[in-house]
Amino acid sequence: MADRAYFDWNATAPLRPESRAAVLAALSHVGNASSVHADGRAARRLVEDARASVAALVGADARNVVFTASGTEANNLALTPSIAVGSQKTCDRLIVSAIEHPSVRAGHRFPADRVEELPVTAAGVIDLAALRAQMARGARPLVSVMLANNETGVVQPIHEVAEIVHEAGGLLHVDAVQAVGRIECDINDLGADLLTLSSHKIGGPQGAGALVVRDAALHIAEPLIRGGGQERGQRAGTENVAAIAGVGAAAKAARQALSTETPRMAALRERVERGLRATMPEVVIFGEESRRLPNTTLFAVPGLKAETAIIAFDLEGVSVSSGAACSSGKVAASHVLAAMDVEPRFAAGAVRVSLGWDTQEGDLERLQNAWIKVSASLLKQRGIAA
Amino acid sequence: MADRAYFDWNATAPLRPESRAAVLAALSHVGNASSVHADGRAARRLVEDARASVAALVGADARNVVFTASGTEANNLALTPSIAVGSQKTCDRLIVSAIEHPSVRAGHRFPADRVEELPVTAAGVIDLAALRAQMARGARPLVSVMLANNETGVVQPIHEVAEIVHEAGGLLHVDAVQAVGRIECDINDLGADLLTLSSHKIGGPQGAGALVVRDAALHIAEPLIRGGGQERGQRAGTENVAAIAGVGAAAKAARQALSTETPRMAALRERVERGLRATMPEVVIFGEESRRLPNTTLFAVPGLKAETAIIAFDLEGVSVSSGAACSSGKVAASHVLAAMDVEPRFAAGAVRVSLGWDTQEGDLERLQNAWIKVSASLLKQRGIAA
Repeated sequence: MADRAYFDWNATAPLRPESRAAVLAALSHVGNASSVHADGRAARRLVEDARASVAALVGADARNVVFTASGTEANNLALTPSIAVGSQKTCDRLIVSAIEHPSVRAGHRFPADRVEELPVTAAGVIDLAALRAQMARGARPLVSVMLANNETGVVQPIHEVAEIVHEAGGLLHVDAVQAVGRIECDINDLGADLLTLSSHKIGGPQGAGALVVRDAALHIAEPLIRGGGQERGQRAGTENVAAIAGVGAAAKAARQALSTETPRMAALRERVERGLRATMPEVVIFGEESRRLPNTTLFAVPGLKAETAIIAFDLEGVSVSSGAACSSGKVAASHVLAAMDVEPRFAAGAVRVSLGWDTQEGDLERLQNAWIKVSASLLKQRGIAA
Repeated sequence: MADRAYFDWNATAPLRPESRAAVLAALSHVGNASSVHADGRAARRLVEDARASVAALVGADARNVVFTASGTEANNLALTPSIAVGSQKTCDRLIVSAIEHPSVRAGHRFPADRVEELPVTAAGVIDLAALRAQMARGARPLVSVMLANNETGVVQPIHEVAEIVHEAGGLLHVDAVQAVGRIECDINDLGADLLTLSSHKIGGPQGAGALVVRDAALHIAEPLIRGGGQERGQRAGTENVAAIAGVGAAAKAARQALSTETPRMAALRERVERGLRATMPEVVIFGEESRRLPNTTLFAVPGLKAETAIIAFDLEGVSVSSGAACSSGKVAASHVLAAMDVEPRFAAGAVRVSLGWDTQEGDLERLQNAWIKVSASLLKQRGIAA
């Protein structure tokens, strides 16, 4: 990374050194965590230590953490009518916000006619009045609202959402993938019944995620991946010990650093935004009026095409992105900005800058220099067009 | 591992040095393989190189390899009525052999009343006459038969199975998790339409598997894990670049070494079995009369309890197992031996010794010395009981 500046932390974050060390140590162990011999038990210990660290990061009990291979898998696992408290199945419809990640919007096991969409305001915040109205329309919904949006960084009022959902007898799933490790995220304070997190967004390796439940009585009666009895029957497949050890170490490091990293990132992001505007005062920052993650800026300038801008930044050695990275390399129209009623032509120019614990002053300079070039060529184009 | 002897390769195999190097190199890259910038493209290259290596190991086209997080997930993905050739859905019932892995027996998305079990003979080989009869009973089945059994190592007559299945217009899925890298395994020679493999069984890291299809027209219309468009829409979730790079390197190494490793393992296994019988002539080796993997021995002695034996071996620094490792640490009754009509009391004593590319002469000595102690205490117990 020395020769480039990386500003795409919301797509994937560099591995924390503590996590790297844990992964390497685990790779040297041989053992299936379900084997009864000493090699297996050593692997099991790594998994259970990691489970405790991940639980601590979100204020949960370790026994309520189910490891998956990704945040996407955890979201898919969570969104099923087979959610049960004890032996009682509890949900027969699903409400998802219009700005959820594709794995929430598409990944559910509810019949299509039992899925409703919850609108958001122009500020990128879910519409609580609409939620109240939807809750009144039927019984026992599962509601899925993300803690922070991956594109805009806008933080959702989960505490209020939880109150509304619980008052109506529903359950709340919170996709906290982008928020965990960047802002305080306690499953009890939030009032989430289920919570998703992803290893590689908090500086752990790719290949691990977790579905965390608040109450041990809550479980998935029909798991998504079935086979061996791993993860107490909630998720089959040989445990990925190295990735799990890695997310455990990342969780521990993220928890310890949270109080210093959050303000540091916020200060850096503030400088990024000042720099963008110093060069082009007409820069619009989406969700700026809302509470946002300290590390994310999604901006646009009239006339700027995201694809062109990303390539121009890339040629300058700077990695930025359009909204999401999850769509097989294609730059697609943003459903998030569409839900915020942003004009499609304007939304098509949205560029995301996201940073993290290892972002340095030098990276910011590089970003700013690239921006000066990108915006200069934009102004030149405008001159030609005029 | 220096101070222990590891004989549980069928549960998980030590990481090959080539694979370890590839994992470490990939962990140093930052990048989401779906990102369009240079960091993302570098990650994408690692994924696609690995795809080519995995495809080569099983004689498939690279574009027909879908990476998953495990063999279990690949099996779950494969077993769905939504298997389609082009736009045509093709299967409305499922036939699985009685000795399949739990992820095949339990992981399907077929309604329970559309699933049939295919019996095996006492020699641990599936009953081809029974298969013919079952095929005649209805149209368009998906048949799932493993290439080699994880407990006995018995190799199944897949080529014959494929002929029977295809003659009847069905599709064949082959769980080749235990066979790949140990014996020749070419998807075209086998005649499999879909094939599952697992990274950590071929000396790659845990956390990667693959579903391979023979014909590019065959796909899963309703993927198991949905969200971003990764893996050409067949499996959502950020690619685990390090694990994928690792399985690629392991596949390459396994392919290069196959012709030397197979006979070497067979010779070592031969010595293991001679040693077991030298000490206790009444040792029974399950599936001995059938073609078996070169690395697997499942044996029992009347009066021997598997749990006791495994602990006794463990105390001597030797890792062996009962049949499977996938059941949350519990030693459960073997459905494989039950399907072979082995008496439950006898089956409860089955101990599996499985070895691999890094098994050394010293490991064999350690195993034999432990066996002498274990069998001596068994003889002593018999003396007391008599």
